[in-house]
Formats: sequence, C-alpha cells, structure tokens
Amino acid sequence: MPMRLDELANAIGATLSGDGSLDIWSVATLKDAQPGQVSFLHNPRYAELMDSTTASAVITGQGVRSDRLAILTSTHPHLAYARAVEALHGHRQHSYQGVHPQAFVDPTAVIGSGTVIYPFAYVGPGARVGSDCILYPNVTIYDHCELGDRVIVHAGASIGHDGYGFATHQGVHHKIIHSGGVRIEDDVEIGPCTTIARGVPGDTIIGQGTKIDALVIIGHNVRIGPGCLLVGQSGVAGSTELGRHVTLAGQAGVIGHLRIGDQATIAAKLLVTRSVEDEETVMGSPALPAPRARRSIVVFAHLQELTERVRTLERRLKVQSGESKSRSK
Amino acid sequence: MPMRLDELANAIGATLSGDGSLDIWSVATLKDAQPGQVSFLHNPRYAELMDSTTASAVITGQGVRSDRLAILTSTHPHLAYARAVEALHGHRQHSYQGVHPQAFVDPTAVIGSGTVIYPFAYVGPGARVGSDCILYPNVTIYDHCELGDRVIVHAGASIGHDGYGFATHQGVHHKIIHSGGVRIEDDVEIGPCTTIARGVPGDTIIGQGTKIDALVIIGHNVRIGPGCLLVGQSGVAGSTELGRHVTLAGQAGVIGHLRIGDQATIAAKLLVTRSVEDEETVMGSPALPAPRARRSIVVFAHLQELTERVRTLERRLKVQSGESKSRSK
Amino acid sequence: MPMRLDELANAIGATLSGDGSLDIWSVATLKDAQPGQVSFLHNPRYAELMDSTTASAVITGQGVRSDRLAILTSTHPHLAYARAVEALHGHRQHSYQGVHPQAFVDPTAVIGSGTVIYPFAYVGPGARVGSDCILYPNVTIYDHCELGDRVIVHAGASIGHDGYGFATHQGVHHKIIHSGGVRIEDDVEIGPCTTIARGVPGDTIIGQGTKIDALVIIGHNVRIGPGCLLVGQSGVAGSTELGRHVTLAGQAGVIGHLRIGDQATIAAKLLVTRSVEDEETVMGSPALPAPRARRSIVVFAHLQELTERVRTLERRLKVQSGESKSRSK
Repeated sequence: MPMRLDELANAIGATLSGDGSLDIWSVATLKDAQPGQVSFLHNPRYAELMDSTTASAVITGQGVRSDRLAILTSTHPHLAYARAVEALHGHRQHSYQGVHPQAFVDPTAVIGSGTVIYPFAYVGPGARVGSDCILYPNVTIYDHCELGDRVIVHAGASIGHDGYGFATHQGVHHKIIHSGGVRIEDDVEIGPCTTIARGVPGDTIIGQGTKIDALVIIGHNVRIGPGCLLVGQSGVAGSTELGRHVTLAGQAGVIGHLRIGDQATIAAKLLVTRSVEDEETVMGSPALPAPRARRSIVVFAHLQELTERVRTLERRLKVQSGESKSRSK
Repeated sequence: MPMRLDELANAIGATLSGDGSLDIWSVATLKDAQPGQVSFLHNPRYAELMDSTTASAVITGQGVRSDRLAILTSTHPHLAYARAVEALHGHRQHSYQGVHPQAFVDPTAVIGSGTVIYPFAYVGPGARVGSDCILYPNVTIYDHCELGDRVIVHAGASIGHDGYGFATHQGVHHKIIHSGGVRIEDDVEIGPCTTIARGVPGDTIIGQGTKIDALVIIGHNVRIGPGCLLVGQSGVAGSTELGRHVTLAGQAGVIGHLRIGDQATIAAKLLVTRSVEDEETVMGSPALPAPRARRSIVVFAHLQELTERVRTLERRLKVQSGESKSRSK
Repeated sequence: MPMRLDELANAIGATLSGDGSLDIWSVATLKDAQPGQVSFLHNPRYAELMDSTTASAVITGQGVRSDRLAILTSTHPHLAYARAVEALHGHRQHSYQGVHPQAFVDPTAVIGSGTVIYPFAYVGPGARVGSDCILYPNVTIYDHCELGDRVIVHAGASIGHDGYGFATHQGVHHKIIHSGGVRIEDDVEIGPCTTIARGVPGDTIIGQGTKIDALVIIGHNVRIGPGCLLVGQSGVAGSTELGRHVTLAGQAGVIGHLRIGDQATIAAKLLVTRSVEDEETVMGSPALPAPRARRSIVVFAHLQELTERVRTLERRLKVQSGESKSRSK
C-alpha cells in the first residue's frame, strides 16, 4: 500500500518541499531508487547522487535543496528516515504468537505477554523473560537469567552460560561454579551468536536500551550501563564496568577489571588495557600499504635503539657545540 | 574399498612414476601415512619428510623425484590432492534426504530439489533456498532471504537477522527496520556461527563461489563479489563493497562505506579504514617478544616527540655546519 | 541450607581464624556481601574493601588479618574459593537425565553413561560422546567426532564442520573434502559459539583438560596440548600445534603451520606469525589516547625515513667530528 508524500512527511515529522500528492511505495538508496520511492541523504559522501537519483523524494537535513526532487527536511534526518522505513515497510510479521511448539521453555520459566519465541529457542529453568520480547531461532537462555521487556535476541546468541573462570592448581584448571546469573534490562537488542556469560558471585548486567551487535563476547560479572553500543566482534572481559552511552567499535576489546567512563568511545580493533575517562576517545593503528608497513614494522621492533641513537646524537652535538663555543672564545 | 594407484592417477589427472598396481586406501599426511596411503607435498616446509615418510605414493608438483616412493606429478598439485581425497573418501553421506522432521521450514518458504536440511535448522517465511544446498544443524535463515544452488551453510550460522542500525535521538537508539534481505549466489559456502545481516533498504549480497569461514561478520548492505575468501573471525562493516576474488585473512576487519578492489588482499588481523585498490595488498604489525614489544610500545607513544628531536638535531647541525664553514673561510 | 563456618573451612581446606559457629549461606563479592555470606580477596586492587565489607568471613592467602572479620586462610586461595562456591551453591541441576527428547542423536552415535544432552543439541552419525559430558542447547557435533569423558560444550558451539580448505584453480575454489574428524580428550570445556573444524587428512585434537572460552576458532588439523587456556575470540589457524599449558589471551590469533611451545603465553589481541619457544611470552600494542595515537600513527607510517634521517645525522656528525679533530691538531 502506498502512502501520499504529504502523509509520509507528517508521519515522520519532516517539512515537505514539493508535490505532496505523490504516491510513495517504499524506501531505497539514492543509487537504486525508482520513481515512487523515497530515499535519504545523511552521509555527505553520497551528496553527488542528488543530481542523478531517480527517487521521487529525499529525506535530508536542513540546507539541502533540489529543483528536481521533493525534499523532506528534518532537524533529525536519521530518525526521520527510521520512521519512514517503519511507516512504509512495517515491523516483521511473526507467523505465530507466543511460544512456538518447536521451542523449549522450561515449566519453571516465566514468559511475559506478547513475547514471541521462535523454533529451537531454549529458555532454561527459573529464567524470566519480560513482555513483548522476541527470541529468534536457536537462542539459548540458560537457567535463572532475567530479561526485561522488549528485549530482542537474535539467532544463536547464548545468554547465561558459565563464565570462563578456573582455579588453576598444580596444572589442573578447576571449574569455578558460576552461581550468579545474567540480568538484561528493558529495550536491549542482542545480535546473533553473541555470548553473555553469567557471573560468580553476582550477576552480569546489561543496561537499559543498550544495543549489542553480532559475535560480541561479554565476560562474567561485566556491568554495562544504559544506552551503550557494542559493535560486532567486540569484547569485554570479566568484571569490567562500562558507564552510560559508551561506544565500543567493531573488533575492539577491553581487558578485565577496568572502568570505561560515560560516553567514552573505543575505536575499532583497539585493545584497551587501562581504565578510560568519561567522554575520552581512544584509538589504535590503521592499515598501511604492505611495503610501507613492512618497513615500519622492522623499525618498530628497534624503536628503543633508534631513541638511543637520537639521544647519543643530542649528547655529541651538545659536546661539539660546547667545544665550538669554547673555541670561538 | 581401495583404488589402484594408476586408477587414482587417472582420476586426479596426475602423471604416475612408480608401481601402478599398488592398492591405495586413503589419504594421510607425510608424517602419519602408512603403506597403502597416498600423501601430498605442496608446502616446502614439509619437503624433508619425503625421506622418512612411509606413504606408498605422494602427490606433488613438478620437479620432485623419489627412489623409494611412487610419485603423482601434477601441474596443479593442490587440485589433484583435493580430487584424491574425493576419490578415496567421498562426500559426506547424509542420513536423510530433504527436510528433516526436526527442522523447521515455514510453509511459505521454497526449497529446491536435492537440498538437505538438518535438524534444528530454521527457514523463515518467504525464504528461498535453491537446489542441492545443505543447511547444517542450528542454522537460521530469516524470512525472505534467498540462497542460490549448491550453497552450504554450517552449524549455527545466522543469515538475514536485522542489521545493526539505529537512529540515535536524545540518547535513545531507535531501531531502523531492515526492510531488505540477504541474497546469496550459487556455490557459496558459509562457516559455522558466521552472521550475515539483512540490508536496509536493499539487500546484502554474497557473490557466486565466495567462501566464508567460521565466526565472520558481514554487516548490512555489504556487497561481496564472486570468488572471494573471507577467513575466520574477519568482518566487513555496513555498505562496504568487496570486488572479485578479494582475500580477507583471519581476524581482519574493514570499516563501513569502503570499496576493496578486485583481487586485493587484506592481511591477517588488519583494520582497514580506507578503500583499497585492485590487486593491492595491505598489512599490519606482527608479534614481538614481550620485552622488545614493551620497549617499542613506550617509544611508539612518543613518536612525534622523537621526530621533533631529530628535526632539532638536523637544524642545529645545519647551523653548526654553516658556522663551521664560515670559520673555515 | 547454610553451612557452619568451621565446616566450610574444613570443606575447602582453609585455616579458620574467627567464630566457627557462624552460619554461611552463600558467596558474594567484598563489595556486595552481607552478613551470612563469605567473600574472597585474591586481586590486590580490591584489598581496601577489607575495611568496609559486611561479609561474615573472607577467603584469602597468607598474611591477611582482620579484627572485624573471620578469615579463611589458604595457601591456594583461588582453589579454596572455587571449592567454597561448590560447597555452598552446588553444580547446576539438570531438569532431565540423558538425551532430551527434543535433542537429536543419530542412531549410529554412541553416548556414555551420565551424559546430559539438552534440547536442540545435535550428535551426528558415528559420533562418540564419553561419560558424564554435558552438551548444552543448540550444540552441533558433526559425524564421526569423538569427545572424551566429562567434556562440557556450551550453547551454539560447532564441532567437526568442514575445515576452511579449498584448492583454487582458474579462479574457482574447489572444496577439499575433510576426511578427518575432531578428537576432544577428557575434561575439556568449550565455550558457546566456539567452532572447531575437522581435519584433512587426520584429526583436529584438543588435549586433556584444555579450557576454551566463547567465540574461539580452531582450524583444521590443529593440535592443542593438555591444560591450555584459549580465551574468548582467540583463534588458531590450520595445522598449528600448541604445546602443553599454553595461554592464548583474548582476541589473539596464531597463523597456520606454527608451533607454540609449552607454557608459552600469547598476549591479548596479538597476531602471532612465527613459532614461539617454550615459556616465551609475546605481546602487541595497547591503546593510546586518540590525539597521541593519531600523531604516532602518522610517524609510524614513515619510520624508515626517520631512521634514514638519524643515520644521515650520525654520518654528518662523524664527518664534522673528524674535521673538528683535524682542525684541533
């Protein structure tokens, strides 16, 4: 079902410049859009596509004009775009309500109303899942874990397995029983094949509205504040605490027993081995062309020696300079 | 059932030097092989094992001879080896054909002939799976995703979950509905616990014959060309495009919105933060012994200061040199 | 059910200083513990909490005293702590014994006594699982793999999928059939969504008592010795051998065909591209504040040029020095 462009503008809270009677059927990129589709521009690197796109309309921020296209201007264009996708495409329709017969929910688990549990999802003894949650196929919720309301867990994620803790004695790694659980607050989304270990003692906690991508590892007794973003393949080791609205970019890692401050940003691929202040940004090293990288790597291994050579030069130049001065007298 | 060595040579397209009447039962490494087994040599670091191996025959490239062993010479020894394993060991035999009763295939999904779906694999509404595919246990194919023919998906992989996209407004991360899907072309193989997100708008695409290892993350709207190799734990962030025959080595990562050119190679563990040209190779930094690494890391943090010190030395030496010359006059 | 403190001391092999008649109900951290709970101190960074904790007793190493609290002194405090958790909390109680009806075990697989198999776990044809093992939900054990006794496999792990091996010929990647299997020795624990590929030819082997965390990748024909620790998101590429008691910290990676010596330690996030000696420790580079990192990265790309400049300075200073000496004569 199409939507008139003026209705769409209204639905997403944008200001329309152009023909409001146009029928809009769906959303597409500037590159792929056809007449009858609305597109969006919020990454400047795609701005030049405004001249060639065949979209009927474009959602964008202030200051963008077009002679050819209808423009939907928003002070929050990314949010307006999200609303447009929702208005035109809607949420996923589940084929069934509640617990699918091919799912497993332990009789002692408690499931809230409106929660959908897909085939091959498992919910263990004593677990509590709130209302309006979605557990996709092959999700495992171990015993006694707690999920709030509107929590989404994608395929293959594991919540509440035993943390990685062993007492090593005479070369044998003795398992430490993980007596705690996992507590996930409201509005959290967890990506596929992400793993969140239970704590000992006490719980691992994921704060309200935090969004975790795919293949992320969260260790035992980690506490993650509300509104954090943990991008794919990142990891947080045991007992580390993340404040509010922390961003951990892709493949980043934080070792155990640290504190990452509110609104801190950890760049992609970084290993964090010390606590990070509020609002601090930390980053690592990016790629180089192979020949240059190889040369720099060779020098890197001998950086201390290079520093020594510079120090020697400084000393000798100082001595010479002294001699020179004394000769000049 | 054994195979005569001359039949095996014929089956794998190799030239036999030695006794063709030998019975060969199976393939083994040079180190482990017993009489009645065929081995192979394609990594020069194992060449010395040619003197001690008890294999009956060895598959290898041109220029290798032996007084003791039958030799199967091929201009493509790796391919000849692959064919020998197939000839002697055969493909995995599935215990059942078609959709196992403990799998779940939505009534609106379409499955091609010859496709085998293992227990606890899930195929969602509107999904299309081609012919002669294999979906191993605990695989999840979300709604409306498309797989071509002869696609293999290993245990626990997730295809078509919602991509990691949120519109953040006043500290709240609003979910962007992922209205697109995933399209996987023919002859793709996907490793266990690998995750491929659906796009918005439009599809995430994996090109024909591309092989993806375990625990790899593919973000929304990524487009991967044909014949690429993505090694374990590598990742490609949203909207990045990989050309044809790109190699992403293990644990490498590519950030979003880039283009990696045809036949480019990204070295293991590397973070790529800029587009890469066709046939370019990029790499990062390898390991060092801990004491040397620690010393270099200390200097690394102060590289700019070191550069400044060198610049100062150059300036002073130039001044001195000038003085020296003026004195010499 | 509580336990008297003197009984607990006895059960964990600790020396009690304080009131043995106290009832102890459970274990908690120094920060969270209430009266009736026992806590522990083995990380010095938490020592100051000894003054404020409201725990009834604390398990610790020698040399720690308290006027306020009962102290359980052990020469192996970490092990004593592990035993206290076991004594007070016990092991996980499974809701069922043996193979759950919603699991799948091929009729040709062999399962030992006391082994528990959760819903949606899959055990393929010809596989052998020892006694007293636990396979959690959504685990996949491919055909003909072997697990010893007391092996624990967490949710979503995949054991025995085809390794990542292709013979590339004229741009086509031909699958190499993986005719080998995976052999996992006694007392191994495998984390969720960890993947262990089968070998070709021959097996991938995980040694007795080795503990593998979540999201770890083990390539084909890897051989891991006994007592190793592989922390989350680490990886070992094909045909590499790890000795005894090797530690691979989080997100570390080892490329293929190497040997990592006994008791070697690979630091977090490191890429290892050469073999490592027994007892060697190798490490990489940690995080820096972004502005400093950016400056160092710029210099890093030109380290060879910096070295050249230092060499030039050294040469010129030597020449000057020579001139200076000759003038001094």
